[in-house]
Amino acid sequence: MKQPTGPRNAFYAQSGGVTAVINASACGVIEAARKHPRKIGKVYAGRNGILGALTEELIDTGKESSTDIRALRHTPAGAFGSARYKLKKYEDNPAQYERLLEVFKAHDIGYFFYNGGGDSADTCFKVSLLAEKVGYPLQAIHVPKTVDNDLPITDCCPGFGSVAKYVAVSIREAGFDVASMARTSTKVFVLEVMGRHAGWIAAAGGLASQKTGDAPHIILFPEIAFDEAAFLARTEECVKKYGYCAVVVSEGVRNKDGKFLADAGTRDAFGHAQLGGVGPVVAQLVKDKLGYKYHWAVADYLQRAARHIASKVDVEQAYAVGKAAVEFALKGHNSVMPTIVRTSNRPYRWKIGMTGLDEVANVEKMLPRDYITPDGFHITAKGRRYLAPLIQGEDYPPYEGGLPKYVVLKNKPVKKKLKNAFVV
Amino acid sequence: MKQPTGPRNAFYAQSGGVTAVINASACGVIEAARKHPRKIGKVYAGRNGILGALTEELIDTGKESSTDIRALRHTPAGAFGSARYKLKKYEDNPAQYERLLEVFKAHDIGYFFYNGGGDSADTCFKVSLLAEKVGYPLQAIHVPKTVDNDLPITDCCPGFGSVAKYVAVSIREAGFDVASMARTSTKVFVLEVMGRHAGWIAAAGGLASQKTGDAPHIILFPEIAFDEAAFLARTEECVKKYGYCAVVVSEGVRNKDGKFLADAGTRDAFGHAQLGGVGPVVAQLVKDKLGYKYHWAVADYLQRAARHIASKVDVEQAYAVGKAAVEFALKGHNSVMPTIVRTSNRPYRWKIGMTGLDEVANVEKMLPRDYITPDGFHITAKGRRYLAPLIQGEDYPPYEGGLPKYVVLKNKPVKKKLKNAFVV
Repeated sequence: MKQPTGPRNAFYAQSGGVTAVINASACGVIEAARKHPRKIGKVYAGRNGILGALTEELIDTGKESSTDIRALRHTPAGAFGSARYKLKKYEDNPAQYERLLEVFKAHDIGYFFYNGGGDSADTCFKVSLLAEKVGYPLQAIHVPKTVDNDLPITDCCPGFGSVAKYVAVSIREAGFDVASMARTSTKVFVLEVMGRHAGWIAAAGGLASQKTGDAPHIILFPEIAFDEAAFLARTEECVKKYGYCAVVVSEGVRNKDGKFLADAGTRDAFGHAQLGGVGPVVAQLVKDKLGYKYHWAVADYLQRAARHIASKVDVEQAYAVGKAAVEFALKGHNSVMPTIVRTSNRPYRWKIGMTGLDEVANVEKMLPRDYITPDGFHITAKGRRYLAPLIQGEDYPPYEGGLPKYVVLKNKPVKKKLKNAFVV
Repeated sequence: MKQPTGPRNAFYAQSGGVTAVINASACGVIEAARKHPRKIGKVYAGRNGILGALTEELIDTGKESSTDIRALRHTPAGAFGSARYKLKKYEDNPAQYERLLEVFKAHDIGYFFYNGGGDSADTCFKVSLLAEKVGYPLQAIHVPKTVDNDLPITDCCPGFGSVAKYVAVSIREAGFDVASMARTSTKVFVLEVMGRHAGWIAAAGGLASQKTGDAPHIILFPEIAFDEAAFLARTEECVKKYGYCAVVVSEGVRNKDGKFLADAGTRDAFGHAQLGGVGPVVAQLVKDKLGYKYHWAVADYLQRAARHIASKVDVEQAYAVGKAAVEFALKGHNSVMPTIVRTSNRPYRWKIGMTGLDEVANVEKMLPRDYITPDGFHITAKGRRYLAPLIQGEDYPPYEGGLPKYVVLKNKPVKKKLKNAFVV
C-alpha cells in the first residue's frame, strides 16, 4: 500500500448502543486529528454511524469550535447519531462494502475510525481487508466502546465503567431508602439492569456492598440459571437478618430451560407479551411467594446515558482510546484497536495497548465464573478486584441552571459528491 | 403552660416516604439542638419514626460524633428509620396518644420534632393539642418533608427539589441517548416518575426542555385525563419533526373514567394484576398503535434516594427547616411548622417563615392548572418560573473508592423506662 504524502481526510462513526462516554472518544479522535493538519485534513463524521458513509451523509466536524469539541468529553450519547446496523458478510452484500469505498474515495478518506463494540470491530476489520484487496489506501482503526464490557483482549471497554458506577451508586442509594422503610413498608427492592448476554453490569452493582448486610444482598446473573427456591430462601433470609433485601437483576436472567424470565410466556389481558421486564417479574414472585411488599425500578437508558455520574477512569479511557486511534494511524498502523492494559490493581494503573482486529472480531469476553460466588448470588473478592478500579473518580459535567450543560453540535453536512443515492 | 427552666429532652422522628435530604433536616435539628445544651438536653430519635415513640425504642443521638451528624447532611434516606404509620383519630384510639405522652413523660421530652408530610403534620398537630389539653408541657414543631411537594403555605417542600433535579437530569440524558439511536432503533422513550396524586414531579421533568425539540416532548400529568388519540397524535408528530419522542409520565395518570392507566384491568397469564407501571403501558400503546420501537424506564426509589444528584437549594432548605424548628421551639413556639418563603424568582431568594399546624394539617397543595399548557402535554412559562429555582446548584456527597460515602449511624438505644410494652 502506498503511503500518501499530503493530508487525507478521516471518517469517524459511532456504532451500536451509545454510552455516557462515547463522545469522549469522539473528542479524543477529533482533538488528536486537529493536532496533525499536515497528515489529517478534515474529520468527517458519519451521520447516524455507518449509514452516514453508505448514504454519503457526512458531517464536517471542522465547522465545530474547539470549545464545542471539548464539550463532547462531558456530553453523553452519540453527538453525530449512532446506528444499529450490521453490515452483511461481504459475500452476501458486496455492494455495501463497495459503496463505502466509493464514498471514501470521493471524499479522499484515508482514515477510518469506527467507534463501537464487537460487531463494529468486525465491520472495521472487513473494510480494512477489502481496502487492502482493492488497493485503496486506508487505515482502519477500531475505537472500542460498549457498556457490555464484552470485547476481548482489552482489560475493559469504555462505557462500561460509567454504567457500573451508576448501578453501584443507585443500588447503594436505593438500599439506604429501603432500609429506612422496611419496618412498616417496602421490604424488597429489585433493580433491573442491562446485560442480555453477560452479567458484567449486574456484577458491578455488587461493588456497593462493602460489608455484610450492605445492599445489594442478591445479584441475579444471566450466567446462572434462575433457581426460584434458592432465590426465595435467600430473600427471606435477608429480610429476617437485615430487615430488607435489595436485589440487582440482569435483564438477561434465564430459567433452567434457557428462557428469559422476562419473557416466560406471560401475557396481559389483550394477549400482549409481558410489558414489564424481569425486574417486575422477580418482584411479583417475591410478593406472591413470600408476601413482602416490594418496589422495583428499571434503569434502562438512564444507566448508560448517566453522564452526570460518569466514572472518571472511564472518561479518561474513552478519551485515550480515541486519541490513541489517531496516533496509531499516524504511525502507519492498520486494522488494529487500541486496548486498555491494566498494569496494577492497587493503585490502579493502566496504559494503552494495541491489538489486531482479527483477534477482536466476533469474540465475546464472558464474565468469568470465579467472579461470581459459588452460590451464584454475589461477586467474589476476585470480581471485586477487577471491577472496583473501573468506577473510580468523578468527572462532573458543567451545570447551568441546575442542569448539566451538554453540547449539541451544529453537524453541518458535507456537500455530496456522488450522483447515485444508496438505499439502506 | 408552665415554662420549664432546666434543659429538657427532644424527640425527633422521620415519617413517611424518605427523601434524598430528610437526613439534612435531621442534621439541622440535631446540630441546632447541640448549640443549646442549657435548654435542650438529649435529642432522642424514634427508631422507625413514630413507632419508636410508641414502643419506647428511642435512639440516643448524643452517642453520635459531630462528624457523623454532619454526614447526615449528605446521606439520603432515613438514618433512624421512617414509618408509614398514620395515627388514628384521637377518638378512635386515644391509647396511642396517651402512650406517646407516657413515653414523653418518662424521658422528659419537652420538644417534639416531627419530620414528614401532610399526615405527619396532622399527627404533630394532634399531639400538640393533646399535650395542651392534659397540661403536659410540650412544644410540637413539624419539619416539612415530602417529594410530593403538596404541603400548603410553604412555597415548596424539602425533598421535592432533589427529585425534580433527578428527573430533569435523567430525561435530558435519556433524550440525548434516544436522539442518537432514533434513526435505526428506539424512537420513543418513556420515563415513569412518582406522583400518584399530583404532577409536581412529572412537571419538573419539563425543565429539561429549554427550547423547541428538547426532551421531554410530552408530559403526562395525573391532573389531565389521558386522551389516547391526542397523545398518539402528538407522539407521531414529535417523531416526524424531531426524529424521536421522549415522554415523562406520572405514575398517577388516569383515563377519563378516573382509573389509573397502570391498573386498567390488565392481567398476566396467571391472572396477576399488571406487573408493570404506567411507563410500560404507555410504551406498549405507542408500539401497538404507531409501531415505533420503544424503551421505558421506571425510576421508582432511585429518584427520591438520589443524593448524588441532589439540588443544592433543596439540601440547604432541608437543613434550614430542621434548624428553624429548633429555633422556633427555643423561642417558645408550639404547634407550628417552618415554611419556605420565596422572596424573589430571579435571582432566586428565599427565607424561613412560620405557619400554624392548623393551617397545614389535611390540606393538599395541587399543581395549578396554569402550570400546565392548555393542551395538557407540557409546562407553561409560569410553571417553569416556579420550578426552575428548586433544582439549582449541586451539592455532591464525598466519595470513596468511586462510591458516595454515606453515613450509617451507631443508633444506640436509650434504656427503656416503662414496664408496659405497647403493641403497634
